[in-house]
Amino acid sequence: MHLYNQLGVVQPTIERVDAAIVAQLAEFGVPTIHEAMGRVGLMRPYIRPVYKGARTAGTAVTVLLQPGDNWMMHVAAEQVQEGDVLVAACTTESEDGFFGDLLATSVQSRGCKGLIIDGGVRDVDVLEEMGFPVFARAINSKGCVKATLGSVNIPVVVANALVMPGDVVVADTDGVVVVPAARAAEVAEAAAKREANEGDKRDRFAAGELGLDMYKMREPLAAAGLKYL
Amino acid sequence: MHLYNQLGVVQPTIERVDAAIVAQLAEFGVPTIHEAMGRVGLMRPYIRPVYKGARTAGTAVTVLLQPGDNWMMHVAAEQVQEGDVLVAACTTESEDGFFGDLLATSVQSRGCKGLIIDGGVRDVDVLEEMGFPVFARAINSKGCVKATLGSVNIPVVVANALVMPGDVVVADTDGVVVVPAARAAEVAEAAAKREANEGDKRDRFAAGELGLDMYKMREPLAAAGLKYL
Amino acid sequence: MHLYNQLGVVQPTIERVDAAIVAQLAEFGVPTIHEAMGRVGLMRPYIRPVYKGARTAGTAVTVLLQPGDNWMMHVAAEQVQEGDVLVAACTTESEDGFFGDLLATSVQSRGCKGLIIDGGVRDVDVLEEMGFPVFARAINSKGCVKATLGSVNIPVVVANALVMPGDVVVADTDGVVVVPAARAAEVAEAAAKREANEGDKRDRFAAGELGLDMYKMREPLAAAGLKYL
Amino acid sequence: MHLYNQLGVVQPTIERVDAAIVAQLAEFGVPTIHEAMGRVGLMRPYIRPVYKGARTAGTAVTVLLQPGDNWMMHVAAEQVQEGDVLVAACTTESEDGFFGDLLATSVQSRGCKGLIIDGGVRDVDVLEEMGFPVFARAINSKGCVKATLGSVNIPVVVANALVMPGDVVVADTDGVVVVPAARAAEVAEAAAKREANEGDKRDRFAAGELGLDMYKMREPLAAAGLKYL
Amino acid sequence: MHLYNQLGVVQPTIERVDAAIVAQLAEFGVPTIHEAMGRVGLMRPYIRPVYKGARTAGTAVTVLLQPGDNWMMHVAAEQVQEGDVLVAACTTESEDGFFGDLLATSVQSRGCKGLIIDGGVRDVDVLEEMGFPVFARAINSKGCVKATLGSVNIPVVVANALVMPGDVVVADTDGVVVVPAARAAEVAEAAAKREANEGDKRDRFAAGELGLDMYKMREPLAAAGLKYL
Amino acid sequence: MHLYNQLGVVQPTIERVDAAIVAQLAEFGVPTIHEAMGRVGLMRPYIRPVYKGARTAGTAVTVLLQPGDNWMMHVAAEQVQEGDVLVAACTTESEDGFFGDLLATSVQSRGCKGLIIDGGVRDVDVLEEMGFPVFARAINSKGCVKATLGSVNIPVVVANALVMPGDVVVADTDGVVVVPAARAAEVAEAAAKREANEGDKRDRFAAGELGLDMYKMREPLAAAGLKYL
Repeated sequence: MHLYNQLGVVQPTIERVDAAIVAQLAEFGVPTIHEAMGRVGLMRPYIRPVYKGARTAGTAVTVLLQPGDNWMMHVAAEQVQEGDVLVAACTTESEDGFFGDLLATSVQSRGCKGLIIDGGVRDVDVLEEMGFPVFARAINSKGCVKATLGSVNIPVVVANALVMPGDVVVADTDGVVVVPAARAAEVAEAAAKREANEGDKRDRFAAGELGLDMYKMREPLAAAGLKYL
Repeated sequence: MHLYNQLGVVQPTIERVDAAIVAQLAEFGVPTIHEAMGRVGLMRPYIRPVYKGARTAGTAVTVLLQPGDNWMMHVAAEQVQEGDVLVAACTTESEDGFFGDLLATSVQSRGCKGLIIDGGVRDVDVLEEMGFPVFARAINSKGCVKATLGSVNIPVVVANALVMPGDVVVADTDGVVVVPAARAAEVAEAAAKREANEGDKRDRFAAGELGLDMYKMREPLAAAGLKYL
Repeated sequence: MHLYNQLGVVQPTIERVDAAIVAQLAEFGVPTIHEAMGRVGLMRPYIRPVYKGARTAGTAVTVLLQPGDNWMMHVAAEQVQEGDVLVAACTTESEDGFFGDLLATSVQSRGCKGLIIDGGVRDVDVLEEMGFPVFARAINSKGCVKATLGSVNIPVVVANALVMPGDVVVADTDGVVVVPAARAAEVAEAAAKREANEGDKRDRFAAGELGLDMYKMREPLAAAGLKYL
Repeated sequence: MHLYNQLGVVQPTIERVDAAIVAQLAEFGVPTIHEAMGRVGLMRPYIRPVYKGARTAGTAVTVLLQPGDNWMMHVAAEQVQEGDVLVAACTTESEDGFFGDLLATSVQSRGCKGLIIDGGVRDVDVLEEMGFPVFARAINSKGCVKATLGSVNIPVVVANALVMPGDVVVADTDGVVVVPAARAAEVAEAAAKREANEGDKRDRFAAGELGLDMYKMREPLAAAGLKYL
Repeated sequence: MHLYNQLGVVQPTIERVDAAIVAQLAEFGVPTIHEAMGRVGLMRPYIRPVYKGARTAGTAVTVLLQPGDNWMMHVAAEQVQEGDVLVAACTTESEDGFFGDLLATSVQSRGCKGLIIDGGVRDVDVLEEMGFPVFARAINSKGCVKATLGSVNIPVVVANALVMPGDVVVADTDGVVVVPAARAAEVAEAAAKREANEGDKRDRFAAGELGLDMYKMREPLAAAGLKYL
Repeated sequence: MHLYNQLGVVQPTIERVDAAIVAQLAEFGVPTIHEAMGRVGLMRPYIRPVYKGARTAGTAVTVLLQPGDNWMMHVAAEQVQEGDVLVAACTTESEDGFFGDLLATSVQSRGCKGLIIDGGVRDVDVLEEMGFPVFARAINSKGCVKATLGSVNIPVVVANALVMPGDVVVADTDGVVVVPAARAAEVAEAAAKREANEGDKRDRFAAGELGLDMYKMREPLAAAGLKYL
């Protein structure tokens, strides 16, 4: 885990997952991708969209922040390219407002597709008007200082999920999932298969077929000892 | 409390509150029903609607789940009849995504009017599109296994409220209230009286009359020692 | 701190910040006012609007409640004047429903502009229809008794912020800020300056200029030891 | 569920589990009893002993409190008999100090063996000196009023567990378990069997035997697909 | 509230409550003082002693910290006199380790009697060995920077309680109470009366007398409608 | 991050930090090691010792658990060698009792030095008697099933900290810190230097020297604008 937990560094050159694969992953909901990954990869569910309907997918530019300090956000802004999503960790728990409409304007102008942050944000109504999707642990007006170094584009842990620079993150109403670069193509394919499969199931469920029959659960349930009184 | 905490059983035949009484209760907000019951019957307020405007009322089909395991949801689906609401407890605290759009499609096709769950759910945007009201403690993409038995249609405790199969549950933006079957008719009547009464009060408040006068509080306040400086 | 923590008193005569200054402050978002005050004055961020888009600004009529008891709300209603906002503290942590549509109707008819409460409220959909903005720590149907004295128009602490009767409170999606009466004019002016300044910054950010350059951060970052790999 | 959620009543005559069976159950730790019940019966783990080493077992005298109000504690004190444990619920979430050294002195003098409360308590050092075991959700000096009726010896829900008057409750460092009266004898027997069995297992584990072998897990693990790299 | 929320200032001269009165208050438990004050004055109960048996009483030297930054602790150390207790607020929620054994050694050498902090501390075992009582919201090894100004000896809000420099704070296992300077003598006297009274009550409770009789509750309970079934 | 988030695998051969270096690190408190690492490496502070005085240091054998399921604990037990500490993550939030006295006996017999777990444990009094140090997020009697695969000795994230098999973990009253294998020697050295340095500082603080002077803070404080009134 080269550079993990190293402070005071910026990695300007990172390898991003191909935009075409990101576009494929962007088609799916977070639960589908999570299932396609084998039921792993989720951030803890306390990370929530800050406005209804927020949804994003992109390649991670990672930031390691210090509590109450958003200096590194400005350093990260320069590293953002078209199609990136900022993914911000903090060295400790801090719900201060690390990000608002000005930073959003700055990174959106550079092609940034959203922010995932284990911290707080502010100017939430403006973020919604701008269509800049943000997923955060808190909404908080508390402003930040610019005094202590963190890092940009190192591996970070955000809401208990490891994120490497260049990984794909997908976020919607159902949460946030991290797809490691090495698995992105495979997961996109698995998600597509799963989705195809789901349409048929949905029709059968809508027609009244039971999961007990569709998934052949009656026998294993009886074997496990289930009794109808 | 016959069957309470018994695992591995399904009770296919339960006595449901009459649909006409449910329909009466469905007219009132949760605070009104709670007051009509004598200020009891609420679930803890951490159970929240997963989308704005969700509202439901129906007879409870209860489920006891195991953590991270939604096997019993499929067993419960078969027990659902027109006008029922699924009410799901868990043997421990678990915020995994026990329920999503496929299960919702299945139970909605059988007349289910919604879900109350002391756990997590996913596919929340689809649930909203479907108009399937869900009240949960979390939104979480985390998928479930199908490995361990719970029970269906036994008495359960959900968010600190006891729910018997066939009881009426009413849920809206203000929370979730459980009306025991034996009290349903009486509570509907009391709620109607209270509501009738409230219209008049609202008019008087809107016209500027004070609660101090309407409820004749000035004397008891003075008796209690309140001083105007 | 005359009267702080004194129970059983009402102060009918308080000095309110001038309506013109309140109107000026009402123009700004909470983050801007918080910055204009020198990054102080916020309530803890667990106080949230109970419906989307709620926003208010006004002079504080303060209430000190007892747990599960909203007697003092009725006493406070009489003290409300055009342009006031009710600001309610509690002697302990209590998330019961201290306030609903009837009390809202009452105080709105007297010119009240909203409620900030370190407790719960109910009838939230009606509050939204009425356009009566409420910021609370919980939504809860639980009704209240009227049995124990608190106070009205004494200094209170709400969500860790001191509020004096007559202070200005401003609340929006980003939180709640308290502007002491003595600083209201100065803060309004500072906020206006800050806002003016922000428009220009926003344009430059939108045009692609980086915060690193705009705020001249490159040199201090290098001095602090930041390394580009 | 006769009397559940009924306010303003006291049931002076309740049927208690036989003292000999309580004594048997008192021999076991909470995890053992919970397993003997089939892995059900626990209160939520936020109920904690207020001093190290607190441990109790007895028959439940139940109390339903109102928030910030301990009037019913005094009513309950009269109902306590030798060998009882007070089990206190609240109609809402309230962490006020419902119980302290005076009430403890009172009920201890009548043979009370402890208190389980979904609320706060105070005078914790004195409770420890007295050897009066208390399990609570909070330690809080906040005093209570005596103004609103609850009930005594009705079915209550405490920390998400249903407790009927006369049931056995066992509490130790590992938590609190409720054994319904009807199952008490059977559970005591099952716990004894389990405990006997555990001694042998402990010896084998201490001698280095692995659970993989003792429980014959290697084959099912391989069948489930576990791979050693 | 002169100086409240003002950053960057130190008030070297404050008026402290007389040591003799502090000594009197130090004789009582926190619940007793809280009752003597009229059931107000408590900090929120999330402030807990960091080791068992911690207890302190003294005059407040207040500190306003910035998140993750303990610069002001060193400024405050110089202001400490014999008999003072440090009382630390933070401009936002931060559980970093603002204080450890070195700072404790420093302030203890100057006569400091303890620390109350709405934040985290570390070196807790050493603090216990030193007999330096600390009451905090968290135990956390996370170190702090020294970069941003707060203030010393201004009015602060700590865990929802207002503390003025020179006020008396008393803390023990049951929590933390703040006695305003102006009320210190009166509260000490009221606490003494209450305590004297309690000894007699304890004896009567121990002898089996019920609160129902001692406090003459039977009649008001019947009047409120309590029914024995 | 080879194997991260891969389910169903066990890595029997891992590279452990040399025992001599672990022994060096075991000499220091968690805050010292955290500072020596550059103020990174801590788990979130919700991981707490389950009994007073618990302290451990060792090389990590990692486990990835499924919610309410401790099957992998038994798989991990076989991988434990003298000097290891079990470090258990979970694919989701689960506070069930994954570990108790039997598993502790098993792994202790194989030389295991303790457990760090982002979940619950039980039999806490026995763990203390055995001198088997455990750091957990909850104490919970809730038993576990053995039904779903996780993994052993893959990289895991525990309480927001990345842990690789073979890394050093040190845990005491102040929290848990993870020292990556590659940095272990360097960190041990830095910690030793820091500790040496602290003794001198402690003496000077004890003698009354102020941090303001020792760290030469007066000038930077004045430069930052601090004013003595």
